[in-house]
Amino acid sequence: MKKVQDIGEFRLIDRIRRFLPSTPTVVEGVGDDCAVIRVFDHLMLVSCDLSVEGVHFRRDLTKPEDIGWKVAAASLSDVAAMGGTPLFCLTSLSVRDDTPVLFVERLYQGISNLLSRFGAVVIGGDTTRTDGPISIDVTVIGEVTGQRFLRRKGARIGDKLTVTGQIGRSACGLHALLNGPSAPGLTESHIGPKPRVLEGLWLSAHPQIHAMLDISDGLCQDASHLTRASGLGVEIDPDKLPLAPEQEEYCATHGLDSVKMTLQGGEDYELLFAMDSENAEEILHAFHQEFRTPITVIGEFTDAWPGVRVRGQKHPMGGFDHFSPTFAAPQDAAPAESDGAEG
Amino acid sequence: MKKVQDIGEFRLIDRIRRFLPSTPTVVEGVGDDCAVIRVFDHLMLVSCDLSVEGVHFRRDLTKPEDIGWKVAAASLSDVAAMGGTPLFCLTSLSVRDDTPVLFVERLYQGISNLLSRFGAVVIGGDTTRTDGPISIDVTVIGEVTGQRFLRRKGARIGDKLTVTGQIGRSACGLHALLNGPSAPGLTESHIGPKPRVLEGLWLSAHPQIHAMLDISDGLCQDASHLTRASGLGVEIDPDKLPLAPEQEEYCATHGLDSVKMTLQGGEDYELLFAMDSENAEEILHAFHQEFRTPITVIGEFTDAWPGVRVRGQKHPMGGFDHFSPTFAAPQDAAPAESDGAEG
Repeated sequence: MKKVQDIGEFRLIDRIRRFLPSTPTVVEGVGDDCAVIRVFDHLMLVSCDLSVEGVHFRRDLTKPEDIGWKVAAASLSDVAAMGGTPLFCLTSLSVRDDTPVLFVERLYQGISNLLSRFGAVVIGGDTTRTDGPISIDVTVIGEVTGQRFLRRKGARIGDKLTVTGQIGRSACGLHALLNGPSAPGLTESHIGPKPRVLEGLWLSAHPQIHAMLDISDGLCQDASHLTRASGLGVEIDPDKLPLAPEQEEYCATHGLDSVKMTLQGGEDYELLFAMDSENAEEILHAFHQEFRTPITVIGEFTDAWPGVRVRGQKHPMGGFDHFSPTFAAPQDAAPAESDGAEG
Repeated sequence: MKKVQDIGEFRLIDRIRRFLPSTPTVVEGVGDDCAVIRVFDHLMLVSCDLSVEGVHFRRDLTKPEDIGWKVAAASLSDVAAMGGTPLFCLTSLSVRDDTPVLFVERLYQGISNLLSRFGAVVIGGDTTRTDGPISIDVTVIGEVTGQRFLRRKGARIGDKLTVTGQIGRSACGLHALLNGPSAPGLTESHIGPKPRVLEGLWLSAHPQIHAMLDISDGLCQDASHLTRASGLGVEIDPDKLPLAPEQEEYCATHGLDSVKMTLQGGEDYELLFAMDSENAEEILHAFHQEFRTPITVIGEFTDAWPGVRVRGQKHPMGGFDHFSPTFAAPQDAAPAESDGAEG
């Protein structure tokens, strides 16, 4: 009998979708960063992120506040990825009988700390016992406040693949956490990611941005989601990757391939998007003026091939797949993913 | 250091609420069956229910379809309890590497089977690996379609405590499942509860109904939520409990106290509400005409004491608390719970 590890996370989701009918009020169903629903002629965004002890966090390495912050950040980043504004969260928590009350309180303090930055609030949830690892699921409800929202599909031939911030920082921070060395700045990026909510809102207001998502599973993996959804390919120029000097230094010191960590590493929660090649310089300038955040063109979309290539080669690595022992295989060979609501 | 089992589920929730600010768009926050939020001048209901293997279900006793059905039913019942209409669900699933794909597919089939009865659909979710028990969290989003919704607070002195259907069936069904004897009808009630969505909608449209919730933790426990929220007490007449003949027969055969099982037993997902004593007969008659479902007055609200009494005695048993080894202590002594959004 086939097991989930045999097919991986993304094919499992494809299988599940077959059982899920839709309705006309569902604008985007399973398959994008958020679901988009029409509520009385307005568009709402909904998403959830589940974090499990031992898979997403370790209590011996991370403070409860940081665990709470990060799982909330992952959820809010999904709303940011579509250019929405997060409003409400629900949290479902499973803890052990002997879990300290203080752990739970500090976890919620972390969630609340992150949410309060964006005016979002926890409005409900569920709490239950488990005999296994602690888990926390955060559901976020947001709204499309601007004129439009951004999806994974929509990239056009010649569009520039563009990214906010610096990527690979989180992967280096995780490496440092697991292996012991000090990596100031990088571990903070891994532990306390900041969802790009304001940046996402700004980008969605610009019609030159055609498609977007957030980097949660890894640059190449997430770029492949854009290419699959848009029916295109993309070429990434590794020389253009925005690498932090402290990352380059850390990788050099510890014998790591900084570019490889950037292409594979997940959990940066930066925004990755397809930008019209016309007026690209103006957008880059205006964005930088507004946020003082790095914004970098790292590749270009093409119809010459499907999937992601790095310096002409089909990308040799995927990203994070929950059911793969290591990094996932490239997704190009997978059956084409239809976007939006399933019929 | 205090552990969660030392304070129990409900005091843990009270502790968590301290960390949770609110906003003016939150009409009801943590503490009722659903959160109620204002979206562009319309009211939406949101709730989530988390089920954990070994706590809420056992794979050796329950088919995957039934596990999916039941966790979805628990969520939809929360919307029913406030008189709303369920529209959308999100599901967060954690499974083991070696979980059969077929198990996951059948689980979603069960969720979909239940949702399709009410025109609700799954619009998104998350899937992740765990090294522990399987868990499934279902978030439901509904709407208030009528003129009003019902909360736990609002019961008035002299109101009739009224219940839909037959209660105690699920507890007997669980007893049979765990102990082996056949209990036709009762095990089905435990495995495949039917959320009272249409009934809840009907009741909320009648101004004679003042407060409502669903029976998930146990009759006495849930009645105590009504009394606490309304600042009243209630007297339950055990002679009036609507017991199914097959339950009485099962209990007699197996030496069980049928009334006690009904007062304590949870997961019936029937509606429990406070009904104005005037015109009560008319409401009972009209409801029965509409649904052909039993509807029974089982007690009366009073300001003579706080909490729940059964035949004049403070109720000696609580209901289901996730962090208590057995049934929970009565909640009357707990600090008063403020309703609605936390400031």
